[in-house]
Amino acid sequence: MSERLIFLTNDDGFGARGLERMIEVMRPFGHIVVVAPETTQSGMAHAITMSNPLFLREVRNEPGLEVYACSGTPVDCVKMALDHLLPDRKLDLICSGINHGSNAAINVLYSGTMGAAIEGSFYDVPSIGFSLSDHSLDADFEAAGEVVYQIVNGILEAKTNFPEVQLAPLCLNVNIPIGRPEDLKGIRVCRQCRGYWREEFFIRKNPAGRDYYWLTGEFQNHEPDATDTDEWALAHNYVSVVPIQVDLTNHTQVTSLGKILDK
Amino acid sequence: MSERLIFLTNDDGFGARGLERMIEVMRPFGHIVVVAPETTQSGMAHAITMSNPLFLREVRNEPGLEVYACSGTPVDCVKMALDHLLPDRKLDLICSGINHGSNAAINVLYSGTMGAAIEGSFYDVPSIGFSLSDHSLDADFEAAGEVVYQIVNGILEAKTNFPEVQLAPLCLNVNIPIGRPEDLKGIRVCRQCRGYWREEFFIRKNPAGRDYYWLTGEFQNHEPDATDTDEWALAHNYVSVVPIQVDLTNHTQVTSLGKILDK
Repeated sequence: MSERLIFLTNDDGFGARGLERMIEVMRPFGHIVVVAPETTQSGMAHAITMSNPLFLREVRNEPGLEVYACSGTPVDCVKMALDHLLPDRKLDLICSGINHGSNAAINVLYSGTMGAAIEGSFYDVPSIGFSLSDHSLDADFEAAGEVVYQIVNGILEAKTNFPEVQLAPLCLNVNIPIGRPEDLKGIRVCRQCRGYWREEFFIRKNPAGRDYYWLTGEFQNHEPDATDTDEWALAHNYVSVVPIQVDLTNHTQVTSLGKILDK
Repeated sequence: MSERLIFLTNDDGFGARGLERMIEVMRPFGHIVVVAPETTQSGMAHAITMSNPLFLREVRNEPGLEVYACSGTPVDCVKMALDHLLPDRKLDLICSGINHGSNAAINVLYSGTMGAAIEGSFYDVPSIGFSLSDHSLDADFEAAGEVVYQIVNGILEAKTNFPEVQLAPLCLNVNIPIGRPEDLKGIRVCRQCRGYWREEFFIRKNPAGRDYYWLTGEFQNHEPDATDTDEWALAHNYVSVVPIQVDLTNHTQVTSLGKILDK
Protein backbone atom coordinates (compact mmCIF):
# COMPACT_ATOMS: atom_id res chain seq x y z
CA MET A 1 0.00 0.00 0.00
CA SER A 2 1.36 3.41 -0.91
CA GLU A 3 1.75 5.96 1.85
CA ARG A 4 -1.39 7.89 2.75
CA LEU A 5 -1.57 11.64 1.98
CA ILE A 6 -3.32 13.73 4.64
CA PHE A 7 -4.11 17.44 4.56
CA LEU A 8 -4.47 19.48 7.77
CA THR A 9 -5.60 23.03 8.48
CA ASN A 10 -7.22 25.08 11.26
CA ASP A 11 -8.57 28.55 12.04
CA ASP A 12 -6.35 29.48 14.98
CA GLY A 13 -3.24 29.93 12.83
CA PHE A 14 -0.32 27.73 11.83
CA GLY A 15 1.38 28.05 15.23
CA ALA A 16 -1.58 27.11 17.42
CA ARG A 17 -1.12 24.37 20.00
CA GLY A 18 -4.24 22.51 18.87
CA LEU A 19 -2.78 22.14 15.38
CA GLU A 20 0.60 21.07 16.79
CA ARG A 21 -1.15 18.35 18.74
CA MET A 22 -3.04 17.18 15.66
CA ILE A 23 0.15 17.04 13.58
CA GLU A 24 1.81 14.83 16.22
CA VAL A 25 -1.18 12.48 16.32
CA MET A 26 -1.53 12.28 12.54
CA ARG A 27 2.08 11.67 11.51
CA PRO A 28 1.91 7.89 11.98
CA PHE A 29 -0.99 7.77 9.49
CA GLY A 30 0.92 9.07 6.46
CA HIS A 31 2.54 12.05 4.73
CA ILE A 32 1.17 15.30 6.17
CA VAL A 33 0.68 18.58 4.28
CA VAL A 34 -0.51 21.56 6.32
CA VAL A 35 -1.74 24.89 4.94
CA ALA A 36 -2.97 26.99 7.85
CA PRO A 37 -3.72 30.70 8.28
CA GLU A 38 -0.93 33.16 9.15
CA THR A 39 -3.13 34.71 11.86
CA THR A 40 -6.16 33.79 13.91
CA GLN A 41 -9.30 33.33 11.79
CA SER A 42 -11.77 32.36 14.51
CA GLY A 43 -15.35 33.07 13.52
CA MET A 44 -14.48 33.34 9.82
CA ALA A 45 -17.05 30.69 8.86
CA HIS A 46 -16.99 29.82 5.16
CA ALA A 47 -15.44 33.16 4.15
CA ILE A 48 -13.18 33.41 1.10
CA THR A 49 -10.87 36.25 0.12
CA MET A 50 -12.21 37.89 -3.02
CA SER A 51 -10.98 41.51 -2.91
CA ASN A 52 -7.34 40.84 -2.07
CA PRO A 53 -4.56 38.56 -3.25
CA LEU A 54 -3.28 35.70 -1.11
CA PHE A 55 0.28 34.91 -0.07
CA LEU A 56 1.74 31.52 0.79
CA ARG A 57 5.01 30.63 2.49
CA GLU A 58 6.68 27.43 3.60
CA VAL A 59 7.36 27.35 7.32
CA ARG A 60 8.50 23.73 7.83
CA ASN A 61 9.68 20.93 5.54
CA GLU A 62 10.95 17.64 6.92
CA PRO A 63 10.49 13.96 6.07
CA GLY A 64 6.76 13.24 6.17
CA LEU A 65 5.68 16.80 6.96
CA GLU A 66 5.25 20.06 5.01
CA VAL A 67 3.75 23.14 6.68
CA TYR A 68 2.70 26.31 4.83
CA ALA A 69 1.19 29.54 6.15
CA CYS A 70 -1.40 31.31 3.99
CA SER A 71 -2.50 34.93 4.41
CA GLY A 72 -6.20 34.09 3.90
CA THR A 73 -9.11 32.39 5.59
CA PRO A 74 -9.38 28.69 6.50
CA VAL A 75 -11.43 28.03 3.33
CA ASP A 76 -8.76 29.85 1.28
CA CYS A 77 -6.20 27.47 2.83
CA VAL A 78 -8.19 24.45 1.63
CA LYS A 79 -8.56 25.84 -1.89
CA MET A 80 -4.87 26.75 -1.99
CA ALA A 81 -3.93 23.22 -0.94
CA LEU A 82 -6.30 21.23 -3.13
CA ASP A 83 -6.41 23.40 -6.26
CA HIS A 84 -2.83 24.72 -6.22
CA LEU A 85 -0.36 22.70 -4.14
CA LEU A 86 -1.84 19.19 -4.55
CA PRO A 87 -4.11 19.36 -7.61
CA ASP A 88 -3.18 15.94 -9.04
CA ARG A 89 -2.65 14.07 -5.77
CA LYS A 90 -5.25 11.73 -4.32
CA LEU A 91 -5.84 12.66 -0.69
CA ASP A 92 -6.95 10.13 1.91
CA LEU A 93 -8.18 12.50 4.58
CA ILE A 94 -8.61 16.17 5.49
CA CYS A 95 -8.67 17.31 9.12
CA SER A 96 -9.22 20.78 10.56
CA GLY A 97 -8.37 21.80 14.13
CA ILE A 98 -7.93 20.90 16.87
CA ASN A 99 -9.88 24.12 17.50
CA HIS A 100 -9.54 26.04 20.76
CA GLY A 101 -13.28 26.26 21.58
CA SER A 102 -16.51 24.35 20.91
CA ASN A 103 -18.08 24.24 17.46
CA ALA A 104 -21.18 22.32 18.47
CA ALA A 105 -24.78 23.35 17.62
CA ILE A 106 -25.13 26.50 15.48
CA ASN A 107 -21.42 27.28 15.99
CA VAL A 108 -20.86 25.05 12.96
CA LEU A 109 -22.08 27.99 10.88
CA TYR A 110 -19.71 30.61 12.40
CA SER A 111 -16.68 28.36 12.71
CA GLY A 112 -13.62 28.75 10.51
CA THR A 113 -12.54 25.26 11.58
CA MET A 114 -15.75 23.79 10.23
CA GLY A 115 -15.73 26.10 7.19
CA ALA A 116 -12.44 24.44 6.21
CA ALA A 117 -13.68 20.92 6.97
CA ILE A 118 -16.85 21.48 4.94
CA GLU A 119 -14.87 22.92 2.02
CA GLY A 120 -12.56 19.91 2.16
CA SER A 121 -15.49 17.53 1.77
CA PHE A 122 -16.33 19.25 -1.54
CA TYR A 123 -13.26 17.53 -3.00
CA ASP A 124 -14.57 13.99 -2.46
CA VAL A 125 -12.20 13.44 0.45
CA PRO A 126 -13.41 12.42 3.93
CA SER A 127 -13.11 15.55 6.02
CA ILE A 128 -13.23 16.01 9.80
CA GLY A 129 -13.24 19.11 11.99
CA PHE A 130 -12.06 18.63 15.59
CA SER A 131 -12.78 21.12 18.37
CA LEU A 132 -12.09 21.12 22.10
CA SER A 133 -14.60 22.93 24.37
CA ASP A 134 -11.83 25.11 25.81
CA HIS A 135 -10.94 28.51 24.34
CA SER A 136 -7.78 29.04 26.34
CA LEU A 137 -4.42 29.16 24.58
CA ASP A 138 -2.98 26.69 27.12
CA ALA A 139 -5.88 24.22 26.91
CA ASP A 140 -5.09 20.57 27.74
CA PHE A 141 -5.14 18.69 24.40
CA GLU A 142 -4.22 15.26 25.73
CA ALA A 143 -7.73 13.76 25.68
CA ALA A 144 -8.51 15.52 22.39
CA GLY A 145 -5.42 13.98 20.80
CA GLU A 146 -6.57 10.52 21.80
CA VAL A 147 -10.01 11.20 20.32
CA VAL A 148 -8.46 12.38 17.05
CA TYR A 149 -6.46 9.16 16.83
CA GLN A 150 -9.46 6.97 17.58
CA ILE A 151 -11.84 8.65 15.12
CA VAL A 152 -9.29 8.97 12.31
CA ASN A 153 -8.38 5.33 12.72
CA GLY A 154 -12.06 4.34 12.71
CA ILE A 155 -12.77 6.28 9.50
CA LEU A 156 -9.62 5.13 7.68
CA GLU A 157 -10.34 1.49 8.58
CA ALA A 158 -14.08 1.71 7.89
CA LYS A 159 -13.75 0.87 4.19
CA THR A 160 -12.36 -2.51 5.26
CA ASN A 161 -14.34 -3.11 8.43
CA PHE A 162 -17.74 -1.73 7.36
CA PRO A 163 -17.84 -1.95 3.55
CA GLU A 164 -21.63 -1.61 3.62
CA VAL A 165 -21.53 1.89 5.16
CA GLN A 166 -21.80 4.77 2.67
CA LEU A 167 -18.85 7.04 3.51
CA ALA A 168 -18.87 9.46 0.57
CA PRO A 169 -19.42 12.29 0.98
CA LEU A 170 -18.22 12.46 4.56
CA CYS A 171 -17.82 15.55 6.72
CA LEU A 172 -17.81 15.26 10.50
CA ASN A 173 -18.11 17.93 13.18
CA VAL A 174 -16.34 16.40 16.20
CA ASN A 175 -16.44 18.20 19.55
CA ILE A 176 -14.57 17.10 22.63
CA PRO A 177 -15.52 18.09 26.18
CA ILE A 178 -12.97 19.51 28.59
CA GLY A 179 -11.35 16.89 30.79
CA ARG A 180 -8.68 14.27 31.22
CA PRO A 181 -8.82 11.16 29.01
CA GLU A 182 -10.32 9.12 31.86
CA ASP A 183 -13.18 11.65 32.22
CA LEU A 184 -14.56 10.96 28.73
CA LYS A 185 -17.51 8.57 28.68
CA GLY A 186 -17.29 7.70 24.97
CA ILE A 187 -18.31 8.88 21.50
CA ARG A 188 -21.87 9.70 20.40
CA VAL A 189 -22.92 10.18 16.79
CA CYS A 190 -25.70 12.77 17.12
CA ARG A 191 -27.46 15.73 15.54
CA GLN A 192 -26.91 19.49 15.66
CA CYS A 193 -28.72 21.02 18.63
CA ARG A 194 -31.16 23.85 17.87
CA GLY A 195 -30.49 27.27 19.37
CA TYR A 196 -28.98 30.66 18.60
CA TRP A 197 -26.62 33.23 20.06
CA ARG A 198 -27.78 36.51 21.54
CA GLU A 199 -25.16 39.22 21.89
CA GLU A 200 -24.45 41.68 24.64
CA PHE A 201 -22.12 44.28 23.25
CA PHE A 202 -19.23 45.29 25.46
CA ILE A 203 -19.07 49.06 24.83
CA ARG A 204 -16.11 51.29 25.68
CA LYS A 205 -14.62 54.54 24.36
CA ASN A 206 -11.38 54.55 22.39
CA PRO A 207 -8.65 57.17 23.02
CA ALA A 208 -10.38 59.51 20.53
CA GLY A 209 -13.63 59.29 22.50
CA ARG A 210 -15.43 57.14 19.94
CA ASP A 211 -17.51 54.16 21.08
CA TYR A 212 -16.28 50.72 20.13
CA TYR A 213 -18.23 47.49 20.46
CA TRP A 214 -17.10 43.96 21.17
CA LEU A 215 -19.27 40.90 20.61
CA THR A 216 -19.91 38.94 23.81
CA GLY A 217 -22.62 36.42 23.20
CA GLU A 218 -24.56 33.78 25.04
CA PHE A 219 -25.84 30.59 23.41
CA GLN A 220 -29.52 29.92 23.96
CA ASN A 221 -30.19 26.20 23.76
CA HIS A 222 -33.69 25.72 22.33
CA GLU A 223 -33.91 22.04 23.24
CA PRO A 224 -32.05 21.52 26.50
CA ASP A 225 -33.94 18.30 27.22
CA ALA A 226 -33.26 16.45 23.94
CA THR A 227 -30.80 13.61 24.49
CA ASP A 228 -29.76 13.05 20.85
CA THR A 229 -27.98 16.39 20.30
CA ASP A 230 -24.32 17.44 20.32
CA GLU A 231 -24.93 19.83 23.22
CA TRP A 232 -26.38 17.01 25.32
CA ALA A 233 -23.43 14.74 24.52
CA LEU A 234 -20.88 17.38 25.51
CA ALA A 235 -22.74 18.30 28.70
CA HIS A 236 -22.63 14.61 29.66
CA ASN A 237 -18.91 14.14 28.94
CA TYR A 238 -19.34 12.39 25.60
CA VAL A 239 -17.47 13.30 22.43
CA SER A 240 -20.10 14.51 19.91
CA VAL A 241 -19.86 13.57 16.23
CA VAL A 242 -22.33 15.25 13.85
CA PRO A 243 -22.22 14.20 10.18
CA ILE A 244 -22.60 17.34 8.03
CA GLN A 245 -24.38 18.06 4.73
CA VAL A 246 -24.73 21.39 2.90
CA ASP A 247 -28.15 21.39 1.29
CA LEU A 248 -29.69 24.37 3.11
CA THR A 249 -33.03 23.95 1.32
CA ASN A 250 -36.02 23.79 3.64
CA HIS A 251 -37.70 21.13 1.50
CA THR A 252 -41.02 21.26 3.37
CA GLN A 253 -41.36 24.96 2.60
CA VAL A 254 -40.57 24.48 -1.11
CA THR A 255 -44.08 23.09 -1.46
CA SER A 256 -45.94 25.38 0.93
CA LEU A 257 -44.37 28.61 -0.36
CA GLY A 258 -45.15 27.75 -3.96
CA LYS A 259 -48.75 28.76 -3.22
CA ILE A 260 -47.70 32.24 -2.17
CA LEU A 261 -44.87 33.00 -4.57
CA ASP A 262 -44.91 30.86 -7.73
CA LYS A 263 -46.00 33.02 -10.62
CA MET B 1 -52.15 49.42 12.20
CA SER B 2 -48.85 50.80 13.48
CA GLU B 3 -46.13 51.48 10.97
CA ARG B 4 -44.02 48.50 9.97
CA LEU B 5 -40.35 48.37 11.01
CA ILE B 6 -37.99 46.92 8.41
CA PHE B 7 -34.26 46.24 8.72
CA LEU B 8 -31.97 46.21 5.67
CA THR B 9 -28.33 45.25 5.17
CA ASN B 10 -26.02 43.93 2.45
CA ASP B 11 -22.46 42.76 1.84
CA ASP B 12 -21.38 45.23 -0.83
CA GLY B 13 -21.20 48.15 1.60
CA PHE B 14 -23.58 50.94 2.64
CA GLY B 15 -23.06 52.91 -0.57
CA ALA B 16 -23.72 50.09 -3.06
CA ARG B 17 -26.28 50.71 -5.81
CA GLY B 18 -28.08 47.45 -5.09
CA LEU B 19 -28.79 48.59 -1.53
CA GLU B 20 -29.86 52.04 -2.74
CA ARG B 21 -32.36 50.38 -5.06
CA MET B 22 -33.69 48.19 -2.24
CA ILE B 23 -34.12 51.21 0.06
CA GLU B 24 -36.19 53.00 -2.61
CA VAL B 25 -38.40 49.97 -3.14
CA MET B 26 -38.89 49.30 0.58
CA ARG B 27 -39.71 52.80 1.86
CA PRO B 28 -43.45 52.55 1.06
CA PHE B 29 -43.62 49.45 3.28
CA GLY B 30 -42.63 51.14 6.56
CA HIS B 31 -39.86 52.70 8.66
CA ILE B 32 -36.47 51.57 7.37
CA VAL B 33 -33.33 51.02 9.47
CA VAL B 34 -30.16 50.10 7.59
CA VAL B 35 -26.91 48.85 9.14
CA ALA B 36 -24.54 47.93 6.32
CA PRO B 37 -20.77 47.34 6.15
CA GLU B 38 -18.36 50.26 5.69
CA THR B 39 -16.54 48.34 2.96
CA THR B 40 -17.17 45.46 0.59
CA GLN B 41 -17.67 42.16 2.42
CA SER B 42 -18.33 39.89 -0.55
CA GLY B 43 -17.57 36.25 0.20
CA MET B 44 -17.63 36.84 3.97
CA ALA B 45 -20.24 34.11 4.50
CA HIS B 46 -21.41 33.84 8.11
CA ALA B 47 -18.21 35.41 9.51
CA ILE B 48 -18.29 37.42 12.74
CA THR B 49 -15.62 39.73 14.13
CA MET B 50 -14.18 38.18 17.27
CA SER B 51 -10.63 39.53 17.57
CA ASN B 52 -11.35 43.21 16.96
CA PRO B 53 -13.82 45.81 18.19
CA LEU B 54 -16.55 47.18 15.91
CA PHE B 55 -17.38 50.78 15.09
CA LEU B 56 -20.75 52.19 14.07
CA ARG B 57 -21.62 55.58 12.57
CA GLU B 58 -24.80 57.22 11.34
CA VAL B 59 -24.62 58.21 7.69
CA ARG B 60 -28.22 59.26 6.98
CA ASN B 61 -31.23 60.18 9.13
CA GLU B 62 -34.43 61.45 7.59
CA PRO B 63 -38.15 60.79 8.10
CA GLY B 64 -38.73 57.06 7.64
CA LEU B 65 -35.07 56.15 7.07
CA GLU B 66 -31.97 55.68 9.23
CA VAL B 67 -28.71 54.43 7.71
CA TYR B 68 -25.67 53.31 9.72
CA ALA B 69 -22.29 52.02 8.55
CA CYS B 70 -20.60 49.31 10.63
CA SER B 71 -16.91 48.38 10.43
CA GLY B 72 -17.65 44.63 10.57
CA THR B 73 -19.11 41.81 8.52
CA PRO B 74 -22.71 41.50 7.29
CA VAL B 75 -23.53 39.19 10.23
CA ASP B 76 -21.99 41.73 12.63
CA CYS B 77 -24.33 44.34 11.11
CA VAL B 78 -27.36 42.16 11.89
CA LYS B 79 -26.23 41.54 15.46
CA MET B 80 -25.47 45.25 15.94
CA ALA B 81 -28.94 46.16 14.68
CA LEU B 82 -31.00 43.55 16.50
CA ASP B 83 -29.09 43.24 19.78
CA HIS B 84 -27.88 46.84 20.15
CA LEU B 85 -29.85 49.42 18.10
CA LEU B 86 -33.32 47.82 18.11
CA PRO B 87 -33.31 45.29 20.99
CA ASP B 88 -36.85 46.00 22.19
CA ARG B 89 -38.49 46.72 18.84
CA LYS B 90 -40.61 44.16 16.99
CA LEU B 91 -39.37 43.93 13.41
CA ASP B 92 -41.65 42.96 10.56
CA LEU B 93 -39.03 42.03 7.98
CA ILE B 94 -35.30 41.79 7.34
CA CYS B 95 -33.87 42.06 3.83
CA SER B 96 -30.27 41.74 2.63
CA GLY B 97 -29.01 42.92 -0.76
CA ILE B 98 -29.71 43.55 -3.52
CA ASN B 99 -26.39 41.77 -4.05
CA HIS B 100 -24.24 42.42 -7.08
CA GLY B 101 -23.80 38.77 -8.21
CA SER B 102 -25.64 35.45 -7.94
CA ASN B 103 -25.96 33.60 -4.65
CA ALA B 104 -27.68 30.52 -6.05
CA ALA B 105 -26.59 26.91 -5.40
CA ILE B 106 -23.60 26.46 -3.05
CA ASN B 107 -22.93 30.23 -3.18
CA VAL B 108 -25.41 30.48 -0.32
CA LEU B 109 -22.58 29.18 1.88
CA TYR B 110 -19.95 31.76 0.78
CA SER B 111 -22.28 34.72 0.52
CA GLY B 112 -22.18 37.61 2.97
CA THR B 113 -25.61 38.68 1.71
CA MET B 114 -27.06 35.31 2.68
CA GLY B 115 -24.99 35.15 5.90
CA ALA B 116 -26.85 38.28 7.00
CA ALA B 117 -30.25 37.02 5.85
CA ILE B 118 -29.73 33.72 7.67
CA GLU B 119 -28.60 35.48 10.85
CA GLY B 120 -31.69 37.72 10.64
CA SER B 121 -33.96 34.69 10.61
CA PHE B 122 -32.47 33.62 13.97
CA TYR B 123 -34.42 36.51 15.53
CA ASP B 124 -37.86 35.13 14.59
CA VAL B 125 -38.27 37.72 11.86
CA PRO B 126 -38.96 36.76 8.21
CA SER B 127 -35.69 37.33 6.42
CA ILE B 128 -34.95 37.54 2.69
CA GLY B 129 -31.68 37.79 0.75
CA PHE B 130 -31.93 39.26 -2.76
CA SER B 131 -29.20 38.85 -5.38
CA LEU B 132 -28.94 39.83 -9.03
CA SER B 133 -26.87 37.58 -11.34
CA ASP B 134 -24.69 40.51 -12.39
CA HIS B 135 -21.45 41.38 -10.59
CA SER B 136 -20.88 44.73 -12.27
CA LEU B 137 -21.03 47.92 -10.25
CA ASP B 138 -23.35 49.48 -12.85
CA ALA B 139 -25.71 46.49 -13.08
CA ASP B 140 -29.32 47.25 -14.13
CA PHE B 141 -31.44 46.86 -10.96
CA GLU B 142 -34.78 47.78 -12.48
CA ALA B 143 -36.16 44.26 -12.84
CA ALA B 144 -34.63 43.27 -9.49
CA GLY B 145 -36.40 46.17 -7.79
CA GLU B 146 -39.73 44.98 -9.16
CA VAL B 147 -39.03 41.47 -7.91
CA VAL B 148 -38.17 42.77 -4.43
CA TYR B 149 -41.47 44.65 -4.32
CA GLN B 150 -43.49 41.67 -5.48
CA ILE B 151 -41.91 39.15 -3.08
CA VAL B 152 -41.91 41.45 -0.06
CA ASN B 153 -45.54 42.27 -0.71
CA GLY B 154 -46.38 38.59 -1.07
CA ILE B 155 -44.69 37.68 2.20
CA LEU B 156 -46.09 40.62 4.19
CA GLU B 157 -49.62 39.85 2.94
CA ALA B 158 -49.30 36.07 3.35
CA LYS B 159 -50.45 36.08 7.00
CA THR B 160 -53.78 37.43 5.78
CA ASN B 161 -54.07 35.70 2.41
CA PHE B 162 -52.64 32.27 3.31
CA PRO B 163 -53.15 31.85 7.08
CA GLU B 164 -52.66 28.09 6.71
CA VAL B 165 -49.05 28.43 5.48
CA GLN B 166 -46.37 28.06 8.15
CA LEU B 167 -44.14 31.14 7.75
CA ALA B 168 -41.97 30.95 10.88
CA PRO B 169 -39.09 30.54 10.66
CA LEU B 170 -38.69 32.02 7.20
CA CYS B 171 -35.46 32.69 5.36
CA LEU B 172 -35.46 33.01 1.57
CA ASN B 173 -32.58 33.02 -0.91
CA VAL B 174 -33.93 34.97 -3.88
CA ASN B 175 -31.88 35.21 -7.08
CA ILE B 176 -32.82 37.29 -10.09
CA PRO B 177 -31.52 36.65 -13.61
CA ILE B 178 -30.01 39.45 -15.70
CA GLY B 179 -32.51 41.15 -17.97
CA ARG B 180 -35.15 43.78 -18.38
CA PRO B 181 -38.44 43.34 -16.45
CA GLU B 182 -40.18 42.02 -19.56
CA ASP B 183 -37.54 39.28 -19.96
CA LEU B 184 -38.46 37.60 -16.64
CA LYS B 185 -40.72 34.58 -17.03
CA GLY B 186 -41.90 34.47 -13.40
CA ILE B 187 -40.95 33.21 -9.92
CA ARG B 188 -40.06 29.61 -9.03
CA VAL B 189 -39.82 28.28 -5.49
CA CYS B 190 -37.14 25.63 -5.85
CA ARG B 191 -34.26 23.82 -4.18
CA GLN B 192 -30.50 24.51 -3.92
CA CYS B 193 -28.68 22.98 -6.91
CA ARG B 194 -25.82 20.57 -6.12
CA GLY B 195 -22.33 21.47 -7.29
CA TYR B 196 -19.06 23.01 -6.12
CA TRP B 197 -16.47 25.57 -7.16
CA ARG B 198 -13.04 24.65 -8.46
CA GLU B 199 -10.39 27.35 -8.37
CA GLU B 200 -7.75 28.36 -10.86
CA PHE B 201 -5.36 30.65 -9.06
CA PHE B 202 -4.30 33.74 -10.95
CA ILE B 203 -0.60 33.98 -10.01
CA ARG B 204 1.61 37.06 -10.44
CA LYS B 205 4.69 38.56 -8.75
CA ASN B 206 4.39 41.62 -6.52
CA PRO B 207 6.95 44.49 -6.68
CA ALA B 208 9.15 42.62 -4.17
CA GLY B 209 9.22 39.53 -6.40
CA ARG B 210 6.92 37.47 -4.19
CA ASP B 211 4.13 35.40 -5.74
CA TYR B 212 0.58 36.43 -4.99
CA TYR B 213 -2.53 34.42 -5.73
CA TRP B 214 -6.04 35.49 -6.64
CA LEU B 215 -9.03 33.18 -6.49
CA THR B 216 -10.73 32.74 -9.88
CA GLY B 217 -13.20 29.91 -9.68
CA GLU B 218 -15.60 28.05 -11.90
CA PHE B 219 -18.86 26.54 -10.65
CA GLN B 220 -19.35 22.89 -11.54
CA ASN B 221 -23.06 22.09 -11.70
CA HIS B 222 -23.52 18.48 -10.57
CA GLU B 223 -27.10 18.22 -11.81
CA PRO B 224 -27.44 20.32 -14.97
CA ASP B 225 -30.52 18.39 -16.10
CA ALA B 226 -32.63 18.75 -12.93
CA THR B 227 -35.54 21.15 -13.51
CA ASP B 228 -36.41 21.88 -9.85
CA THR B 229 -33.20 23.72 -8.89
CA ASP B 230 -32.29 27.39 -8.54
CA GLU B 231 -29.64 27.11 -11.26
CA TRP B 232 -32.24 25.75 -13.69
CA ALA B 233 -34.69 28.53 -12.85
CA LEU B 234 -32.07 31.25 -13.41
CA ALA B 235 -30.83 29.68 -16.66
CA HIS B 236 -34.43 29.75 -17.92
CA ASN B 237 -35.10 33.39 -16.93
CA TYR B 238 -37.09 32.64 -13.80
CA VAL B 239 -36.49 34.25 -10.42
CA SER B 240 -35.40 31.48 -8.03
CA VAL B 241 -36.62 31.38 -4.42
CA VAL B 242 -35.03 28.78 -2.12
CA PRO B 243 -36.36 28.56 1.45
CA ILE B 244 -33.39 28.10 3.81
CA GLN B 245 -32.86 26.08 7.00
CA VAL B 246 -29.69 25.69 9.05
CA ASP B 247 -29.69 22.15 10.40
CA LEU B 248 -26.50 20.87 8.72
CA THR B 249 -26.93 17.39 10.19
CA ASN B 250 -26.80 14.58 7.64
CA HIS B 251 -29.56 12.65 9.41
CA THR B 252 -29.14 9.50 7.31
CA GLN B 253 -25.52 9.22 8.36
CA VAL B 254 -26.30 9.68 12.07
CA THR B 255 -27.60 6.12 12.01
CA SER B 256 -25.05 4.53 9.69
CA LEU B 257 -22.00 6.09 11.36
CA GLY B 258 -23.12 4.99 14.79
CA LYS B 259 -21.91 1.49 13.85
CA ILE B 260 -18.41 2.76 13.20
CA LEU B 261 -17.95 5.39 15.86
CA ASP B 262 -20.32 5.03 18.83
CA LYS B 263 -18.33 3.79 21.78
